[in-house]
Amino acid sequence: MPSRASLASLRQLGEFGLIQRLTQRIGRAGPPVLLGIGDDAAVIRMGPGRLLLLSTDLLAEGIHFDLATATMEEVGYKAAVGNLSDIAAMGGEPQYMLVALAIPAWRTVADVDELYRGLLRACRRHGVHLVGGDTSASPRGLFICITVTGISKTRRALTRDGARVGDLIYVTGTLGDSHAGLKLLRARRKPVSRAPGEGQRRNVRFLVKRHLRPTARVPEGQWLASRRLATATIDLSDGLSGDLGHLCTRSRVGAEIETASLPLSPACRWYARLLHRDPADFALAGGEDYELLFTVSPDNRRRVDRLAQRRGFRFTRIGTIKSRKFGIQVRPPTGPPHAMIPRSYRHFQHLGPTAGPGEA
Amino acid sequence: MPSRASLASLRQLGEFGLIQRLTQRIGRAGPPVLLGIGDDAAVIRMGPGRLLLLSTDLLAEGIHFDLATATMEEVGYKAAVGNLSDIAAMGGEPQYMLVALAIPAWRTVADVDELYRGLLRACRRHGVHLVGGDTSASPRGLFICITVTGISKTRRALTRDGARVGDLIYVTGTLGDSHAGLKLLRARRKPVSRAPGEGQRRNVRFLVKRHLRPTARVPEGQWLASRRLATATIDLSDGLSGDLGHLCTRSRVGAEIETASLPLSPACRWYARLLHRDPADFALAGGEDYELLFTVSPDNRRRVDRLAQRRGFRFTRIGTIKSRKFGIQVRPPTGPPHAMIPRSYRHFQHLGPTAGPGEA
Repeated sequence: MPSRASLASLRQLGEFGLIQRLTQRIGRAGPPVLLGIGDDAAVIRMGPGRLLLLSTDLLAEGIHFDLATATMEEVGYKAAVGNLSDIAAMGGEPQYMLVALAIPAWRTVADVDELYRGLLRACRRHGVHLVGGDTSASPRGLFICITVTGISKTRRALTRDGARVGDLIYVTGTLGDSHAGLKLLRARRKPVSRAPGEGQRRNVRFLVKRHLRPTARVPEGQWLASRRLATATIDLSDGLSGDLGHLCTRSRVGAEIETASLPLSPACRWYARLLHRDPADFALAGGEDYELLFTVSPDNRRRVDRLAQRRGFRFTRIGTIKSRKFGIQVRPPTGPPHAMIPRSYRHFQHLGPTAGPGEA
Repeated sequence: MPSRASLASLRQLGEFGLIQRLTQRIGRAGPPVLLGIGDDAAVIRMGPGRLLLLSTDLLAEGIHFDLATATMEEVGYKAAVGNLSDIAAMGGEPQYMLVALAIPAWRTVADVDELYRGLLRACRRHGVHLVGGDTSASPRGLFICITVTGISKTRRALTRDGARVGDLIYVTGTLGDSHAGLKLLRARRKPVSRAPGEGQRRNVRFLVKRHLRPTARVPEGQWLASRRLATATIDLSDGLSGDLGHLCTRSRVGAEIETASLPLSPACRWYARLLHRDPADFALAGGEDYELLFTVSPDNRRRVDRLAQRRGFRFTRIGTIKSRKFGIQVRPPTGPPHAMIPRSYRHFQHLGPTAGPGEA
């Protein structure tokens, strides 16, 4: 007889509960498999100092992407980057991509061409070969499954589980731009102001581009892996508050984030001001930045800062790893620190009652 | 402006038209990529005499599987075998599997556990590690995307495009059993006869098992690749008439199949007799046998027969490769030969008017 836990619906358990359960059930499969389910990618030892990285993602229309705010080309591009970012977070060099599609039969060939144009554009930009795929009909909605293989010429891949108390927390790039860009796209028909100046238009273009044309931080990831400077790494796809939570769970630690340190673009600050919002909220809750979050031992702080500057990488220290008991807290510039609430996208829980049994 | 062809709906173009279009547009990506879109798997040169094979499949509930005739466990098992069979058809040894799921939120954890039980069972049986995956919510219906990596320690993988006029056509195992098993499952509530004897029950069990528990012909594929005895290979997932058509298209040849030679199990013959049907029809049109179809130069005929017998492989010669002009013909035991009509499952075309624009 199935246990009470196993009769729970996925909505009750949630995506991360489900992943945790699968990690426990399937676990590590054998000596060549260094890391199975539970990180950004699986890691397999191919030979001395050579790791194979494998990552797969299945994206559903209406859940992961919305064809009302993005074209087929943009959806293809972003779908590819999301997966390439998983390889970047493991410190790997992405090499080959496979794409499987389930498409409603009424869609046109031009739709598929457009989707592939976006996929190929992302592949070219990141030096990846699109080598194969599968297409079939979907009874409803578009589904895109992308698998990327990567290699890492290191002994250890970057993983989520190595952060230690006292480590410094860094991120690449700026945070919250993608979220601001999405808000702008959704509000496209409402003009930002009656007569936007060139500065405003430039901000809008920047934020929308950050949402639609993200970059997977592949060189940064490879650099961190080859120099063994990061103790743990994750890519920011769900949003800082959510992804930091995943890293802390896997590393069994807590964290403190200083909101004053969060790297924000001038465009993001401008847009937050316009909406009378705190831009730090965009950085904490907004997803799809595809920046890397990594932790560094305090002994390596100077080295990281110096080397990053030499390579032209934008790395910003945003906080410190604390004990598990400390939890995850946010320290604002003034006032007392407070617990960080994960506000990232959670599958199964956000679907609401419309996805009930009657729909299947 | 998009061309007239690109405005055609996918239903008009069909799955194979779409794959052909993508093959032309994306083509072969570069020197390490020996084979991209268009075969069972992508082939990448990893080093001297070492090929990496990559295959991905996306399965949709209501199109590729039906939870009315199969349990979650059985769906998981078959989904895995379908993909492992693609690696078998290239002569590879499957190694690692990734699984991405999109699941309606009302499904229970027990459903996912069951699905994984089936996936893991197929992996164990074929010596494959399930190393990673992704789970997310689906607005409607279950979607399963499986990716398998394989290796081949040969200079060339088995492909669909090497058949020459005069080559002999072989298949492994028996054909049509899976189709008969599916028919039996669908008719489950109507008893086969008022008082079935043990022989009948054994036949039913055999056919249902062939449908629900197929085997990927991995040793056979590896054997054919290592001895370089096959000029072309494909796995029979869509049905003999459809898959032979794909092989002939890629090899630019025709074929003649002798229906009297088709390998049929006693159980399949029994069931066809019961339905007053020609069992050869089950073999020609029935899908999901996951047997291999391969072509052999007539010079190698004796060698193949002798070596196969020694290994205990069941290989049956069912016809001959002809010129392209000849087309694909079926020669019955009596009467004139006739053109073979591909009766395999075709995506996009079989969905009918219910999948119209209003559904998306």
